[in-house]
Amino acid sequence: MTRYVNDLKLSQFVQNVFLSFGIRREDALICADNLVLADLRGIPSHGVARLRRYVDGMANGTILPLNQPEVVREAPSTATIDGRAGLGQLVGHFSTRKAIEKAQKTGVGIVVARNSNHYGIAGYYTQMMLDAGLLGLSMTNTAPLVVPTFGRKMIIGTNPISLTAPTKRNRPFFLDMATSVVPRGKLEVYDRLDKDMPQGWAVDSKGLMTTDATEVLKNMIARLGGGILPLGGEGELYGGYKGYGIALLVDILCGVLSGGAYADMVDVRGPGGKGQPALVAHFFMALNIENFVEMDIFQEKMDDLIDRLKESEKAEGQQRIYVHGEKEYELYEKHKSSGVPLEEPVYNSLKAIAGERGVAFELE
Amino acid sequence: MTRYVNDLKLSQFVQNVFLSFGIRREDALICADNLVLADLRGIPSHGVARLRRYVDGMANGTILPLNQPEVVREAPSTATIDGRAGLGQLVGHFSTRKAIEKAQKTGVGIVVARNSNHYGIAGYYTQMMLDAGLLGLSMTNTAPLVVPTFGRKMIIGTNPISLTAPTKRNRPFFLDMATSVVPRGKLEVYDRLDKDMPQGWAVDSKGLMTTDATEVLKNMIARLGGGILPLGGEGELYGGYKGYGIALLVDILCGVLSGGAYADMVDVRGPGGKGQPALVAHFFMALNIENFVEMDIFQEKMDDLIDRLKESEKAEGQQRIYVHGEKEYELYEKHKSSGVPLEEPVYNSLKAIAGERGVAFELE
Repeated sequence: MTRYVNDLKLSQFVQNVFLSFGIRREDALICADNLVLADLRGIPSHGVARLRRYVDGMANGTILPLNQPEVVREAPSTATIDGRAGLGQLVGHFSTRKAIEKAQKTGVGIVVARNSNHYGIAGYYTQMMLDAGLLGLSMTNTAPLVVPTFGRKMIIGTNPISLTAPTKRNRPFFLDMATSVVPRGKLEVYDRLDKDMPQGWAVDSKGLMTTDATEVLKNMIARLGGGILPLGGEGELYGGYKGYGIALLVDILCGVLSGGAYADMVDVRGPGGKGQPALVAHFFMALNIENFVEMDIFQEKMDDLIDRLKESEKAEGQQRIYVHGEKEYELYEKHKSSGVPLEEPVYNSLKAIAGERGVAFELE
Repeated sequence: MTRYVNDLKLSQFVQNVFLSFGIRREDALICADNLVLADLRGIPSHGVARLRRYVDGMANGTILPLNQPEVVREAPSTATIDGRAGLGQLVGHFSTRKAIEKAQKTGVGIVVARNSNHYGIAGYYTQMMLDAGLLGLSMTNTAPLVVPTFGRKMIIGTNPISLTAPTKRNRPFFLDMATSVVPRGKLEVYDRLDKDMPQGWAVDSKGLMTTDATEVLKNMIARLGGGILPLGGEGELYGGYKGYGIALLVDILCGVLSGGAYADMVDVRGPGGKGQPALVAHFFMALNIENFVEMDIFQEKMDDLIDRLKESEKAEGQQRIYVHGEKEYELYEKHKSSGVPLEEPVYNSLKAIAGERGVAFELE
């Protein structure tokens, strides 16, 4: 059974859970906003379904929620932040604020952060830059779930990229994507349905193509080999090395440039890994458009670019060409009025968290 | 028959061809370096095989080789360049020099250029940044050869991305990739061999999957519909909308941010298009690593990242995991000693150009 929950009530509940760990009110609001925004946009894998992991992380010491991020290196257009194993959302918010201020003063703000935790959807931070009238880019490395071309071990993350660009008539351009073929959640769907997944999504423990999602997930959890493929799939025939390359681009700009962790050093919790810092790293870039071209011209060109794509002839059998962000804007509006859909297991996990943390559970 | 030609002799010949259009000696050297570097690295599609297009462009007025790029907007960390329909290599070189100077002074240099021409391999410019000890990113939009997800018309370019990062023990990381599944050249190979190409590379005039390379190329030339697919292939099953999204990211940062042309406005020469400017746009970003982390630490982490990838277990039947740039470095070394391989048609086209331009043809 799917329940539809008002997003403001949901946010209040999530804030209260975070507040139960003693963090500041404004920080709890950021964390709740970040998770609920994902649900509103139709990205439930990064929404309140993940609250369990944050709560467990704070409880077992992987996340140190009272730690505030610290600037370790700074210049007018650049900064490096040490997240001090704090909440990824707070590290991301702090770094993005800094990137925005720098862009407003110098035209560019590039901020990298190390020693952070999972920061939710990359699009939360680019939305902040968009709200400030800037062009925004955000990336993060993640737990290694992706196998490099010709490999059989998960060494690289699903390393997402988000880019936003302001428009006038149309909705803003809003890219927010992982650099793997599919997220892990897609494998879980096929596992639950006990169906063959499409060839080209993942490889088995020998590094060979498989359609057995259950087997792949089992191997992934035990780290026995196999995992998700980079965008472009297996081998070189469909450009899998390109997806692998873009994932490395993200990791170099996040993990290496921040002086932090990268590849299979990130967010790997083995049997003895309880309480071990996740060491996630992020990259943020804000650009002040007027430094490059008049805002008016930029927005007109964005609108025209979007029009050209949307008005272009469709493939036979297709009704619509999408531009990135459209689907999420439409779901956002839908969920704002219908409520955020919560599946039974997610609803139950929130209820259990409420009990554990002594927080009132009033979503209806 | 393949001829092997000394790269310095080849470069001298290409310089002489460019000099025959009256450009400065240092500019001819840049253009020749750019083309011969592509051949040395094993990217012949962007090497001297393309000299014919540059020569024709200069002859018919698409490229105005005497025009020098002009700064239209500038701040300490940013600049916008008008290429004035000049040679793309010169616009790229000028912009990259500027990005490097800015990065050395402020930590970041972001330079966008509009109204340029085809600038050769993106990696030529990131190599310049790498030589200056910087982290380098370069992108360009291109003629539209790629069909957006659910579309049937070519609206977006193959929009390549290059990123370089310095190392200590290992060869530098060197990504230089188009964001389409395959380059057009791959279709041409299947056309010449009269073989079925793999499903998932291109679509026909209705926007549907096809393996008929000859038909696709015919349709592409006449712009009857169909074209190459973005990285991730057709539809959404393998993430084709992600490759489409990355291609748009490139076009927004190049074409829109520079106030220039984008999508199907770039480098489209219809029947009446002779002499029409190509309107190609580029993006360059140089980062001074020490602004973010000690260079020593950065390089050690890059070496460690590369080691982790290369030493990771291989898929069954595979001997080697590659890191981006390795194949090109190995070919570079091979071609430096063996000479650059020139196929018969390319050799003949150079010979014909020599005759037209009154330049001595001494390659052996």
